[in-house]
Amino acid sequence: MSSGKILVAQGGGPTAVINQSLAGVVLEARRHHGVSLVYGAHHGVRGIVNEDLVDLTRETSHNLEMVAGTPASALGSTRDKPDLKYCQEIFQVLKAHAIEHFFYIGGNDSADTVRIVAEEAQKAAYPLRAIHIPKTIDNDLVGNDHTPGFPSAARFVAQAFAGANLDNAALPGVYVGVVMGRHAGFLTAASALGKKFPDDGPHLIYVPERVFEIDRFLADVKAMYDKHGRCVIAVSEGIHDAEGAPIITKLAADVEKDAHGNVQLSGSGALADLLCEEIKARLKIKRVRGDTFGYLQRSFVGCVSDVDAREAREVGEKAVQYAMWGEGSGSVAIRRTGFYSVDYELQPLSAVAGKTRTMEDEFISASGTDVTDQFRLYLRPLLGSGMPDAFRLRPNPVPKILKI
Amino acid sequence: MSSGKILVAQGGGPTAVINQSLAGVVLEARRHHGVSLVYGAHHGVRGIVNEDLVDLTRETSHNLEMVAGTPASALGSTRDKPDLKYCQEIFQVLKAHAIEHFFYIGGNDSADTVRIVAEEAQKAAYPLRAIHIPKTIDNDLVGNDHTPGFPSAARFVAQAFAGANLDNAALPGVYVGVVMGRHAGFLTAASALGKKFPDDGPHLIYVPERVFEIDRFLADVKAMYDKHGRCVIAVSEGIHDAEGAPIITKLAADVEKDAHGNVQLSGSGALADLLCEEIKARLKIKRVRGDTFGYLQRSFVGCVSDVDAREAREVGEKAVQYAMWGEGSGSVAIRRTGFYSVDYELQPLSAVAGKTRTMEDEFISASGTDVTDQFRLYLRPLLGSGMPDAFRLRPNPVPKILKI
Repeated sequence: MSSGKILVAQGGGPTAVINQSLAGVVLEARRHHGVSLVYGAHHGVRGIVNEDLVDLTRETSHNLEMVAGTPASALGSTRDKPDLKYCQEIFQVLKAHAIEHFFYIGGNDSADTVRIVAEEAQKAAYPLRAIHIPKTIDNDLVGNDHTPGFPSAARFVAQAFAGANLDNAALPGVYVGVVMGRHAGFLTAASALGKKFPDDGPHLIYVPERVFEIDRFLADVKAMYDKHGRCVIAVSEGIHDAEGAPIITKLAADVEKDAHGNVQLSGSGALADLLCEEIKARLKIKRVRGDTFGYLQRSFVGCVSDVDAREAREVGEKAVQYAMWGEGSGSVAIRRTGFYSVDYELQPLSAVAGKTRTMEDEFISASGTDVTDQFRLYLRPLLGSGMPDAFRLRPNPVPKILKI
Repeated sequence: MSSGKILVAQGGGPTAVINQSLAGVVLEARRHHGVSLVYGAHHGVRGIVNEDLVDLTRETSHNLEMVAGTPASALGSTRDKPDLKYCQEIFQVLKAHAIEHFFYIGGNDSADTVRIVAEEAQKAAYPLRAIHIPKTIDNDLVGNDHTPGFPSAARFVAQAFAGANLDNAALPGVYVGVVMGRHAGFLTAASALGKKFPDDGPHLIYVPERVFEIDRFLADVKAMYDKHGRCVIAVSEGIHDAEGAPIITKLAADVEKDAHGNVQLSGSGALADLLCEEIKARLKIKRVRGDTFGYLQRSFVGCVSDVDAREAREVGEKAVQYAMWGEGSGSVAIRRTGFYSVDYELQPLSAVAGKTRTMEDEFISASGTDVTDQFRLYLRPLLGSGMPDAFRLRPNPVPKILKI
């Protein structure tokens, strides 16, 4: 007989819809008669080891619905990446509170944490069901058609580039927009969905799946600028040279590293500024502007894909159903079943944990600086309904009188 | 008897609703029986002197409506700031094409151009009606309650900070968001409208109307960080020291200047990066992130205030009515008449031209780092309907078992 106690937590970078998954877990769990208490941990695994827990059974359904529609992690998040000892501490807290169902909403690192905690429970013959619920704007979880959070961030990026293209057409020059994504270029590639007319930008897209060479880059920019009289460029923050060294490290002398030992890429405009300086200096183009989309792309309120919101809710609900009626621990995965429909399944934690998906080759054009129609077909339904559309005036030139 | 020929053009930085004003001019003008042809100039005054004109009479009403809903300047814009000789060239083109009504949608520099062109026409006894139609995200035109384009940009900034605050609460640290605005802090101050709960960010707001001192800034940040365990900061790109030198010049050795002789503030992440480095180095806070909102705040598609769109359309329509039925040239101005209602009037071009409005003292708190309720009352109705709202979980702590 289960203790009926559940714990849910949120890890890693927030998304626009991660609270949908939280609400999905809590509301679905409270529907089950076997569930007595639904706890949440503040700031992910850190809140678990510190026993910083809240009782979500006492939250109103109405407020949970309102929180579901609010971006960023309502329980708080963490960048901690637990090692074995940390995971053992997590397990000790779960045991002390008699929690038999643990749900962790996060990326591939979070899946790895869930995997280790589940193993610890098994070793101790403790009846724990541990379920990983996918979330990441990077779309880099294996075994998933896509991950909740990515579609809304992709929508932001597409809308941002649609606007940047219009702005650049009004005041021509070169525009560089730097998009999040360390290893996976999905989010940067989403910029292509902001294009409508054939000469619209982004005219060039650089993803971490391809080696970045500054000379090649400058030649690309020059060719586009000569052709269109302007150039809009989407660049992933994770672009790197042939040795795998991030381009950003070529600029910054003092580079910050995160808890995972990775070079800090976000929260600085340095990469965009570096690329703009190169273009100005070597191509002698005057009007060159760079923007780094930074945290806006994952936390802007009011840019959510309804498809993403719905699926993020469902992966939370499904997680509870797998835990209650299923056989064991695992990671909820989204499978595409039609154009456009999805279904869910529970995959083994080891299939997701610590692994990184990158853009499939068929999504990247032969030039390496554009996406394919296959990618457009893949991404468009995820962006949801009500995507803004751009229109332009048709050319009806007036004959010149003075300057003929 | 009028020639019935009209010319409209767009100058300065694009906005989310400047095409509403364009559509307002064209559709209203085509309604008047005295009007035979409606021309548009590509890229503002530059297109006029180059006779790069299009016949908007041949555009469909339907497409004009679609273009009206599209951000950025559909005719193209320019940063040219005409001197007397340039204005005389403009007048020669108007005369050659027998244009007797000239509409220029732009900021205070554009108003100045309209003023000089109108004077040239008067000197030549040429029957020109020249009307300036207000537009600027900076909200820095005198004689206007507010200017079209500002409300939508303000909405973007408010939504961006609402999201940044949630993200920062989930992963605590210091967040610096740099907002456009050289002399006027209205847009930066709009960040305050993203606040809901008393401890929400932005916790500090720095506008160009107050002198920026780095030591005072660091003390402010430390106090807020000590109080909340985090700090969200809105900074105007135009912040300057007591001598009026932009803070950005203290960092960048090689500063770009625009056609108006101003230091280039946008299109670079340098100011945010500088402030973040100072906070990291001197306050020893580890997680410090900076974003520069850049061109997103004026060109993002899908973040438009319906109030702004409506008013931008009306100033275009009113401009034509003033030209057709009024007494002379002028600048259309928005007056607030109630809570919330507006009306329009034509003010003399000299009242607007080349002048800059900054934030009124009663809009800035005594601390100099926050806005007043008067500002909230001023701005809220402009943001329009459907503003996203943020919700949070209520605290229901679970008693600790292990760590008591």
